Amino acid sequence: MSLNALKPVKVGLLGIGTVGGGTFTVLQRNQEEIRRRAGRGIEIAMVADLNTERAKEVVGNAAQVVADARAVIANPEIDVVVELIGGYGIAKALVLEAIAAGKHVVTANKALLAVHGTEIFAAAREKGVIVAFEAAVAGGIPIIKALREGLTANRVQWVAGIINGTTNFILSEMRDKGLDFDVVLKEAQRLGYAEADPTFDIEGVDAAHKATLLSAIAFGIPVQFDKAHVEGITQLSATDIKYAEQLGYRIKLLGIARRRDNGIELRTHPTLVPMSRLIANVEGAMNAVLVQGDAVGTTLYYGKGAGSEPTASAVVADLVDIARLIDAAPEARVPYLAFQPDSMSALPVLPLEQVQTSFYLRLRVADKAGVLANITGLLAEQGISIDAVIQREADQVSEGGQTDLIILTHETTEGGMNKAIAAMQALPTVLAPIVKLRKEELA
Amino acid sequence: MSLNALKPVKVGLLGIGTVGGGTFTVLQRNQEEIRRRAGRGIEIAMVADLNTERAKEVVGNAAQVVADARAVIANPEIDVVVELIGGYGIAKALVLEAIAAGKHVVTANKALLAVHGTEIFAAAREKGVIVAFEAAVAGGIPIIKALREGLTANRVQWVAGIINGTTNFILSEMRDKGLDFDVVLKEAQRLGYAEADPTFDIEGVDAAHKATLLSAIAFGIPVQFDKAHVEGITQLSATDIKYAEQLGYRIKLLGIARRRDNGIELRTHPTLVPMSRLIANVEGAMNAVLVQGDAVGTTLYYGKGAGSEPTASAVVADLVDIARLIDAAPEARVPYLAFQPDSMSALPVLPLEQVQTSFYLRLRVADKAGVLANITGLLAEQGISIDAVIQREADQVSEGGQTDLIILTHETTEGGMNKAIAAMQALPTVLAPIVKLRKEELA
Repeated sequence: MSLNALKPVKVGLLGIGTVGGGTFTVLQRNQEEIRRRAGRGIEIAMVADLNTERAKEVVGNAAQVVADARAVIANPEIDVVVELIGGYGIAKALVLEAIAAGKHVVTANKALLAVHGTEIFAAAREKGVIVAFEAAVAGGIPIIKALREGLTANRVQWVAGIINGTTNFILSEMRDKGLDFDVVLKEAQRLGYAEADPTFDIEGVDAAHKATLLSAIAFGIPVQFDKAHVEGITQLSATDIKYAEQLGYRIKLLGIARRRDNGIELRTHPTLVPMSRLIANVEGAMNAVLVQGDAVGTTLYYGKGAGSEPTASAVVADLVDIARLIDAAPEARVPYLAFQPDSMSALPVLPLEQVQTSFYLRLRVADKAGVLANITGLLAEQGISIDAVIQREADQVSEGGQTDLIILTHETTEGGMNKAIAAMQALPTVLAPIVKLRKEELA
Repeated sequence: MSLNALKPVKVGLLGIGTVGGGTFTVLQRNQEEIRRRAGRGIEIAMVADLNTERAKEVVGNAAQVVADARAVIANPEIDVVVELIGGYGIAKALVLEAIAAGKHVVTANKALLAVHGTEIFAAAREKGVIVAFEAAVAGGIPIIKALREGLTANRVQWVAGIINGTTNFILSEMRDKGLDFDVVLKEAQRLGYAEADPTFDIEGVDAAHKATLLSAIAFGIPVQFDKAHVEGITQLSATDIKYAEQLGYRIKLLGIARRRDNGIELRTHPTLVPMSRLIANVEGAMNAVLVQGDAVGTTLYYGKGAGSEPTASAVVADLVDIARLIDAAPEARVPYLAFQPDSMSALPVLPLEQVQTSFYLRLRVADKAGVLANITGLLAEQGISIDAVIQREADQVSEGGQTDLIILTHETTEGGMNKAIAAMQALPTVLAPIVKLRKEELA
């Protein structure tokens, strides 16, 4: 096969902000290297952005710039539409229109796919086009490819990832500097690690979107963001980060998908992780995903989870895959969600009450005889066994006969734990709302 | 596409030892899961092993067992031949015969491909068959896929990996327990982490084979094991591991391939790595590979680098890839060495003298005035600048007016360093052979 025998793949870009700009730059700078790999050129022929001035500054004369995304979709020369607008609104309409027009689609839009993936993949299958989304999870880390292709021999048991850089940056800072959430958030916003409206990041929604995609390709279930448990880091206190550290744990916001006999756990929440695990040492805005397969054991994938060129790296990798497969039969392609569409799993996403984890509890209690016996008795009533108990005279509670009681439990259900907490909370010796965090060994 | 519309892919296994047995087991246990992903079945139809008794014990009635590998290759029903014999001898002949017979080939044989890859890939290209080798590097970690497909957008700058579990286990033990190489090697052999003849592992040959493959797919150069610098861990002393630790470094056997303006560095040697890097914390028999790309930045891939099922995980992933592409045109395939065969790079592998690294030096010197001035003067003569110097009264040298001088240098060439060492060694105040280790920041 000669290098220039194959026509270049023509790409239309919808949105040329951070990731779009990076995609354009990387394709330009490395075009020769990419062509040598792909066996054909990949050219951005058209760019749509409402801000046509900015778009023209980025692309110069290299591509046609339009304000109307539909002009890109309508262009019969365009083979692939890259959607980098984000959100559920216009992005959804445009992706569906691109599919209807017979274009292959590459998108970095986790929100769109986690919520509307079933509709989008069905439409794409109908039209025989590819929808690729490596950039939607963990930026430049090829985790979608690893799960969909690299680990196909495995029955995946669980996936757990630091898949939101903003929150990992905030947690790293909180731990390093002993500061509270609000203070660090402001700093993160100043440094550009958090957006002006950081809600999606700090409330765990962005990580949960990505965890939803990971759950689908790990277990062959449809995307079901509506069933995901979503919990962010806004309630996390520096105190618990400090206590966790003293017990040998780091607190990370993890997106977790775990197979159980009766269903799939799909949850995003702050999690205590043993300090000795590599993933516990992933600091700042970096991302990392652990995958546990029955044959391969535990594997980890680490890198930049966001940013212009790291995300562009994933977009361009998808374009190269499409360039290779564009003339091949659909059978040659990897299924959208790793499993053939007619072979998806019916395993349900489990309700939170049935989720099993071990727990970290912090109780502010009166410093009296019998308090611990009462509390451990209530845990025992729910069949919850205790791994460790420590008592701490924290600075701010050392006066007035109060103390902090930290309890680590063995694995139990969320439902059982909630009952035990309700009972403990009712004790007169428990003086403040009980703090509950989940703990994962990830072994 | 209906699940059973496509004929299963028929596989012939050459060799059913550790990895072959794992491959059989994983394909049996997860056949339903694999079929749901691949869109067709993957069946081991024939197994060749000189030990037919053992082979029959493993496969039962599920596959035909023969002693003669050529009977597998001659069977027109077989689509893919999996070579798990190892070594350069009979394995090479059988792989070439399988290719000549029009079979696709999957192999875990890094030695064969690192040494004879050019001939094998040329033959495969001629016959239009796939040669897949995910299992040849880092066991179950999908690093070949990450480099060949996941990072196609990038101009790769360097790759550095812990790609030999035996030596990483030995180094971890030496550090943990402060023991010398020989003692730990015996323990590793007893535990099954090192083979009875551990030469290929401890002398760095196995890691260098894998680094050779990584260099080819990272930079698009042909496999050139004959140009690789190969250095093992047999000369490493517990003293240097301890000093490195005191300076904030761990010593790891790394396979490194780095792009320079005038060529590619390809080298395997013990390396000081800053303790704060994730890869410095990869312990025991685990593997990890760092890849630095110009768009994605630094990414890391971690997991089990050897063993029955982890390696089988990679073999089966290759089989699934082949199952998808078996009916597609060659253009749909990923090139053997990541770059199209007619677009390989002519960048030479640099001779060791031109390799650039920073260094750790340990000199046993007479404890006299002027010694340090003489030594630093000789380094300066070669244009080598010093990063840090520490003096240590190590236990065993604290008597008789001797001391250990540890010098960390900035980056320089190996050739320049060798000249400086020759000059320092000639000083009457330098009392023992100078220890030289390379250091990499991996940032």
